[in-house]
Amino acid sequence: MKLAVLGAGAVGRSVADLAGEYGHEVTALADSTSAAVDSEGIDVAAALAEKDEAGRVGSAAPEDALDTEYDALVEATPTTLGDAEPGFGHVRAALEADHHVVLANKGPVAERYADLRELERDSEGRVRFEATVGGAIPVLSTVESYGPDTISAARGVLNGTANFVLSRMAAEGLGYEHVLAEAQDLGVAEADPSFDVNGTDAALKCVILANVLGDREYSLDDAEVEGIAELPGNALELAGEDGRTVRLIGEATPEGVRVGPRLVPENGTLAVSGTRNIVQLETDHAGRLNLSGRGAGGPETATAVLADVNRLGD
Amino acid sequence: MKLAVLGAGAVGRSVADLAGEYGHEVTALADSTSAAVDSEGIDVAAALAEKDEAGRVGSAAPEDALDTEYDALVEATPTTLGDAEPGFGHVRAALEADHHVVLANKGPVAERYADLRELERDSEGRVRFEATVGGAIPVLSTVESYGPDTISAARGVLNGTANFVLSRMAAEGLGYEHVLAEAQDLGVAEADPSFDVNGTDAALKCVILANVLGDREYSLDDAEVEGIAELPGNALELAGEDGRTVRLIGEATPEGVRVGPRLVPENGTLAVSGTRNIVQLETDHAGRLNLSGRGAGGPETATAVLADVNRLGD
Repeated sequence: MKLAVLGAGAVGRSVADLAGEYGHEVTALADSTSAAVDSEGIDVAAALAEKDEAGRVGSAAPEDALDTEYDALVEATPTTLGDAEPGFGHVRAALEADHHVVLANKGPVAERYADLRELERDSEGRVRFEATVGGAIPVLSTVESYGPDTISAARGVLNGTANFVLSRMAAEGLGYEHVLAEAQDLGVAEADPSFDVNGTDAALKCVILANVLGDREYSLDDAEVEGIAELPGNALELAGEDGRTVRLIGEATPEGVRVGPRLVPENGTLAVSGTRNIVQLETDHAGRLNLSGRGAGGPETATAVLADVNRLGD
Repeated sequence: MKLAVLGAGAVGRSVADLAGEYGHEVTALADSTSAAVDSEGIDVAAALAEKDEAGRVGSAAPEDALDTEYDALVEATPTTLGDAEPGFGHVRAALEADHHVVLANKGPVAERYADLRELERDSEGRVRFEATVGGAIPVLSTVESYGPDTISAARGVLNGTANFVLSRMAAEGLGYEHVLAEAQDLGVAEADPSFDVNGTDAALKCVILANVLGDREYSLDDAEVEGIAELPGNALELAGEDGRTVRLIGEATPEGVRVGPRLVPENGTLAVSGTRNIVQLETDHAGRLNLSGRGAGGPETATAVLADVNRLGD
């Protein structure tokens, strides 16, 4: 398949880099100010080198990326809230031109799900977004093939940064600010980690899960969200004395979407360590499924994007 | 889709029972001596009641099941080794008539993979077999969508009976024979549990994984298999003193297929308890994925079968 990749951050770069290995071709790669475009397939290595050296991926304008030949748009620009622009506009342009869309950007799926599905209904193209929930973990494709109607709830650890901070705090007895600074040094937390530690990122993923599972459309405004920054200093210590620990748990249930710090058994399934994510699906006929793996990272998220591209090719 | 279900054990019964909920219709249900057949859809409840009361599912002969109208054959007769008959013959008949095939029966996939794929190549029908590995756990569909070439190895706990026995022995300090008898009382182990405890069942699943992942075709003869019956009495105790325990671990790697009791960390990911199964996939670009859930049982395995039917409908 021919792919137009929008966004040249960690995910977009990795998608472009790995596309060939999956048998696909990149006909456009754009960042916010430039693009490399060639309907016969761009030279990905050259574009990524130019990005590193000159801060741009090519000599074309970003808007040229969607004018070239492609089968699927890969939307990997940063997640934005509210109207989810400019991502939503990219998705609209691709679907109106009857192309497929694969999203790594959570905004359009979490904030404008009804609009997204309406555009899809009027298009020959289909929309997929495995990468928006749990990174490399095949959560949404499992929901899809098991049938959303047969899954009553989803819950799990959906933010690797918050999980890294909580597991380090518990294991080493260190304070929140100290561990967060360490996470920033390691590149595990961003310079502005607020979406990760205040629960927004996990909530967006749970909203997406709720939209896929549910009878009504959710957006971030419908979610009840609490982060980890205000966790009392002794909460982890008290939990530990009782064989438990604290994790930032997100839930999508028929009652709605909730994210917050919760007590979980110290050696239990939900107490994944480091940056790992886990999702538990409660099925009607097959009990509980646990799916865990790397919830973020360029190649990890790109793997989920390319798995979606593979599914579109079936 | 119209389904012809062969086999009226726990899995076949559950497939027939749940098919309607997934939007499908059962046009035939057969056990080894009888069948219920109706091209407009059989009365599943009546057929299952007749099975309970009179030991047969209907007044037709089993071979009539494949003469009716159906889109997909569900092969859920007992797994047999070697030539994998009669299951393989059923699969051949369906594919030669250009119907799809969904297997819960491991025999044709583990023992005659090359033959199976050759029949599929010459057919309009496609073959799927998610239910043959890990019950309800979406192992093979994950391998498929991630691309078998990008997964270097699979390993895990693939037999719930053996795992139940080992986890009870470790938790309660009880002997093998005692726990096995208890498992039989609970219906967790069959009257003849040899395939479960001698590693054959786990090995068949690993052979299937190796066939899907691999460059060459395996059968049970190629697997190196050791069971749990000969585990020294003090092995679990010694492991426990060291923070470890024993699990029957199956592996499909580029080096081949191996099944045997292995030491694993007591609170580690592989040490699932009771009848749960877990599969770890080593991916090239996304690290390790852990998938766990119920590895056996009628509704659980039927869920995997019906997920395959859903995928065929895409």
